[in-house]
Amino acid sequence: MHKIIFIVFFMISIFINAQVLYSPNKDFKMEFSLEDGIPQYKLTYKGEPIIKKSQLGLELKGKKLVEDFDVLGSSTSTFNETWSPVLGEYSEIRNNYNELLVELQQQDSEIKLNLVFRLYDSGLGFRYEIPAQKEIHYFELMNENTEFNLTGNHKAFWIPGDYDSQEYVYNETKLSEIDNDKLNLNNGVSVKSIGGRYVVQSPLMMKTEDSIYVTIFEAAVDNYPVMHLNLDKEKYSFQANLASNTVGSTAFLRTPFHSPWRTIIASDDAREILSANRMILNLNEPSKIEDTSWIKPMKYVGVWWEMHVGKSTWEYGKEENGILIPNGKHGATTENTKRYIDFASKYGFDGVLVEGWNVGWEDWFGNWKEDVFDFITPYPDFDIKEVSEYAKSKNVELIMHHETSASVSNYERWLDRAMDLMNEYDYSAVKTGYVGKIIPRGEYHDGQTMVNHFNYVAKTMADNKKMVNSHESTRPTGMHRTYPNYVSAEAARGNEFNAWSKGNPPSHETILPFTRLMGGPMDYTPGIFEIKMNHYNPNSDFQVHTTLAKQLALYVTMYSPIQMAADLPENYERYSDAFQFIVDVPADWQDTKILEAEPNDYVVIARKKKGKDEWFLGAITDENARNFKVKLDFLNKNKKYKAVIYEDGKDAHWKDNPKSYKIRELTVDSKTVLKLNLAEGGGTAIHFK
Amino acid sequence: MHKIIFIVFFMISIFINAQVLYSPNKDFKMEFSLEDGIPQYKLTYKGEPIIKKSQLGLELKGKKLVEDFDVLGSSTSTFNETWSPVLGEYSEIRNNYNELLVELQQQDSEIKLNLVFRLYDSGLGFRYEIPAQKEIHYFELMNENTEFNLTGNHKAFWIPGDYDSQEYVYNETKLSEIDNDKLNLNNGVSVKSIGGRYVVQSPLMMKTEDSIYVTIFEAAVDNYPVMHLNLDKEKYSFQANLASNTVGSTAFLRTPFHSPWRTIIASDDAREILSANRMILNLNEPSKIEDTSWIKPMKYVGVWWEMHVGKSTWEYGKEENGILIPNGKHGATTENTKRYIDFASKYGFDGVLVEGWNVGWEDWFGNWKEDVFDFITPYPDFDIKEVSEYAKSKNVELIMHHETSASVSNYERWLDRAMDLMNEYDYSAVKTGYVGKIIPRGEYHDGQTMVNHFNYVAKTMADNKKMVNSHESTRPTGMHRTYPNYVSAEAARGNEFNAWSKGNPPSHETILPFTRLMGGPMDYTPGIFEIKMNHYNPNSDFQVHTTLAKQLALYVTMYSPIQMAADLPENYERYSDAFQFIVDVPADWQDTKILEAEPNDYVVIARKKKGKDEWFLGAITDENARNFKVKLDFLNKNKKYKAVIYEDGKDAHWKDNPKSYKIRELTVDSKTVLKLNLAEGGGTAIHFK
Repeated sequence: MHKIIFIVFFMISIFINAQVLYSPNKDFKMEFSLEDGIPQYKLTYKGEPIIKKSQLGLELKGKKLVEDFDVLGSSTSTFNETWSPVLGEYSEIRNNYNELLVELQQQDSEIKLNLVFRLYDSGLGFRYEIPAQKEIHYFELMNENTEFNLTGNHKAFWIPGDYDSQEYVYNETKLSEIDNDKLNLNNGVSVKSIGGRYVVQSPLMMKTEDSIYVTIFEAAVDNYPVMHLNLDKEKYSFQANLASNTVGSTAFLRTPFHSPWRTIIASDDAREILSANRMILNLNEPSKIEDTSWIKPMKYVGVWWEMHVGKSTWEYGKEENGILIPNGKHGATTENTKRYIDFASKYGFDGVLVEGWNVGWEDWFGNWKEDVFDFITPYPDFDIKEVSEYAKSKNVELIMHHETSASVSNYERWLDRAMDLMNEYDYSAVKTGYVGKIIPRGEYHDGQTMVNHFNYVAKTMADNKKMVNSHESTRPTGMHRTYPNYVSAEAARGNEFNAWSKGNPPSHETILPFTRLMGGPMDYTPGIFEIKMNHYNPNSDFQVHTTLAKQLALYVTMYSPIQMAADLPENYERYSDAFQFIVDVPADWQDTKILEAEPNDYVVIARKKKGKDEWFLGAITDENARNFKVKLDFLNKNKKYKAVIYEDGKDAHWKDNPKSYKIRELTVDSKTVLKLNLAEGGGTAIHFK
Repeated sequence: MHKIIFIVFFMISIFINAQVLYSPNKDFKMEFSLEDGIPQYKLTYKGEPIIKKSQLGLELKGKKLVEDFDVLGSSTSTFNETWSPVLGEYSEIRNNYNELLVELQQQDSEIKLNLVFRLYDSGLGFRYEIPAQKEIHYFELMNENTEFNLTGNHKAFWIPGDYDSQEYVYNETKLSEIDNDKLNLNNGVSVKSIGGRYVVQSPLMMKTEDSIYVTIFEAAVDNYPVMHLNLDKEKYSFQANLASNTVGSTAFLRTPFHSPWRTIIASDDAREILSANRMILNLNEPSKIEDTSWIKPMKYVGVWWEMHVGKSTWEYGKEENGILIPNGKHGATTENTKRYIDFASKYGFDGVLVEGWNVGWEDWFGNWKEDVFDFITPYPDFDIKEVSEYAKSKNVELIMHHETSASVSNYERWLDRAMDLMNEYDYSAVKTGYVGKIIPRGEYHDGQTMVNHFNYVAKTMADNKKMVNSHESTRPTGMHRTYPNYVSAEAARGNEFNAWSKGNPPSHETILPFTRLMGGPMDYTPGIFEIKMNHYNPNSDFQVHTTLAKQLALYVTMYSPIQMAADLPENYERYSDAFQFIVDVPADWQDTKILEAEPNDYVVIARKKKGKDEWFLGAITDENARNFKVKLDFLNKNKKYKAVIYEDGKDAHWKDNPKSYKIRELTVDSKTVLKLNLAEGGGTAIHFK
């Protein structure tokens, strides 16, 4: 449903060198000015400066679009529309902004550059546009000079600006303390390409001394690198920082050109930051897929966690003199897959992911090797026909797995044949993986080439009516509005790091919604019940930094329309009462209410199941125990609900006693105030029906 | 037919530091030695040194395999086999060599390196082998240190060592005069990446002061860059020079590894150099295609030359605001294609090539643009279904055209879909093109990535039973033995340069057999009858540097199993008596006799049609008129033949009177001595039947 309510558009007199734009609710004020020919902007929120005067400009090869500008003209307009995402946290999203278009021309060259500012009630989006013109057709972008001059030494929640990985633990420091050289990088991340000592990733969440929350991010990245941020510590100023390509520039482009949107979201209420991820979606283009009826939410289990805990292997065996010698521990066997299918069918899961089904795993990692997988040849103990038919008979779908080992050139060679296989066996979704150094060699995960690749895969999958859930991709920037089949991504440090490294601290899942999830759903793979790895290996002291109840709450706090129940079937069946929450929770929502939130501390979210009068609540905390008093005023006023509450046991503790939980039932209504008690590293999950 | 006659294999005592190997006819002697731990070789021919003591070695990233070696062991063997190429200049080829295997080990690291030398009656092939071993599995090659120390300041026939093009006119100078900085590079070559001031291409043809002909080349290049040669002018020494990749090395490899064969062919008779291209084939692996019944020689015409002469265009029109505006001059229309089909059918040609049939030409060149062609979308005035059905009804095949604009990443994305289209309409051959700067950006046409691409395309085409004829590819090194569907290539300055640049001098076609054609067939596109471009444009003084009769002779001297009659149908019909030779000449041969040859001066070749007692002779000369007395002793002793002789008119001259020709008939036998009179830039073509 796209309902354009009204658009106002009027030209403002030419040659004005300063322009003011307000958000619809007047909370934000953006001022554009041209000083000594240099375009600049500043942003205030409720009268307080958020971004001080900051320069804008692009450096093209042979042409600097940074100074000597005149204003040729400008215009403002207002936009107000409500639209419905195919899958989402909300069934309807309002897209309401005031826009300022500034048309610039360089004095001597007559090169034209436009700046477009959109001010929403939640913040600012702006982008560069280079119109079609004689002077510029094809061009090479060297640098983007966008500045974000901050107002002080804010607290920042940051990870290093690594062009090849976002799988880091967050650091919470003052801006002045950002320093990649001081990080312990022994963290399980295999490929690192950090852009500089003071380069951090966007989305970058900050909090001022006056408790204003400020996030710098971007939206709608297509045919352009994703944006990192390079800190000038003297000035508390960030500059856009883009991964280079193999020839030392950042992007090959042509006019008419527009950059991705650069965004600044701010609020004095942390909860509003979390709901402002809708602004990122609004800045993306509407769906390019006409018939979206085949795009469906999916809950799934998979032959996956058992490899992470060392119970089985991705590889069938070891190659010796050209012959594959089985190791007897291969996970993706016909038999084992059938066991997962039986389990999925019994509990109503939509899908079964099978990793390690195909030849190549015996020598896939670490050698920058181009020809690893062909995406069509199963291992000898995986009978794809038999398994597919069995799944179909049990009303379960198999989820394809394409680990590319970052050999993208090879994946693109094989993609059409891989599609043929998926079509032959009716796979409707694929999990992709990009572990390793990129081939074409010299490219980065976050460069233009790879951004184009991820969008190419999304488009190719759409042409074949397949959904894609990409791991180790660039982090999303709302493109799932445009390609709603790009249902989820990883692109952050997921749950599996807990199985084989020092893992993710209890606070990790409380910062992700403020950072990674601003750009789109994350396939975090929650639901681990056997929390300590000594369950599998007596010598291991690795563990998930969680209580069992918190793992349930993540199904609400960590939005993904393709959502995994990551643990092993046998572990779920040992805790079948707790498992019931995972069975009940949906992956697609009618509405979302952010009830409590503080970055890196806690998040409490309630969501309504799409098309049903059922609500689910997830509350999670960091390493500190917390109590929340939650008003249930989001419930239908005229109804009573049964609340099934899955919460930490009294003695629960992420480290000392993580599996302690209790389940209780209450009758509640919209006037009820519920008290939630979360243990250290704990959580609460509630089903209101 | 593969007949292994005998193999002798015996171990020679360990720790011998010098080894001598002779060719079967004893003309060549190769000596291997290890001096101060450095492997070296030298080569003599009939007692005269050809290659002085020259070092061998490889530089790996982190490991130099150049010195500190011991000889672990060595062995010699003899090989003698006769095999039959699927298509070729000979129906049978004898592969007879003596081999020396030297096993080296580095003193401290214990890294193993093998050297394999094969000595033929026509010269030396040798290669590096790194066996599987603990110390080296995956590795990155930085440099290959192979030296070719020559014995003097030879005459050389050279073109600059350009990693992106071989489309140069040859220079004939002393080694001491090689200097790329002194070349006029305004030569119609659009992309140039010359590897250094004194880097030249292989195959490099030389002639010593004692009139020994020496060629340095290579064979069986796979998963490795092609070899250029860097001259040390002080020492008259060449070192192997390889195109780098995007990360500054030359190849990503793994053990067990072997390099391509480095070859030195030498003779005191220039004619033996031309027949020694069989040694290059012998050093390649036998066919990997089991059923080769679908691989056939093809003569073809095409919608092609008319674009080069400006009569029509590849592009349908110009794009304006996203709409294609037709220019009214598009060549590849349904109607025009049918005209060529009619012509092909009338004269018994197998195929019709159609260039410019697909969307993309309106903006294809010069901008390092990735998404240019999709290889499946015809222009609106090219009805592929109608044209294909029409061709089939006339017993003619269409030849597909895939211009990639060197955007290889894009071509590989589309290749499977392009194959589907070719299969749908029964195309059995494709001409590929790689004009422009390579994408992945930073790669070169001659680098490992592109070598792999060309072989990947050959393999993919083989899987689909398609033949490929690649233009602007790396020059071939005999891989058409292994992939006989890789039927031809351009990879040198072709005939079309004459249409729109100062073109190719009359000597050009007399040097190509000594250089470019040593590695495989060339689709030179001969047969231009309207020689002067003022036929099309009164202001043009461009022309083909040839007589008409020489264009006929090229069908014999310039071997290609896919051979074009490049001129326009209407031009052929104006000279239908001369055209008869093109109608009669085959593209696949039973036997070949090199009758006269001198690099850059003249070539006279006779060939026997495969399976028929018919011979064809081609004689060509450079800018000088020449007479040859040719003994016809290659003819069947017991038969008389009618010889139809197509020769230059008395007043013929490539510049002043190129279209003067006469045709006469003689009765001849094996004892006849024919006198051939070639005009300046002229030629003679004879059909013996």
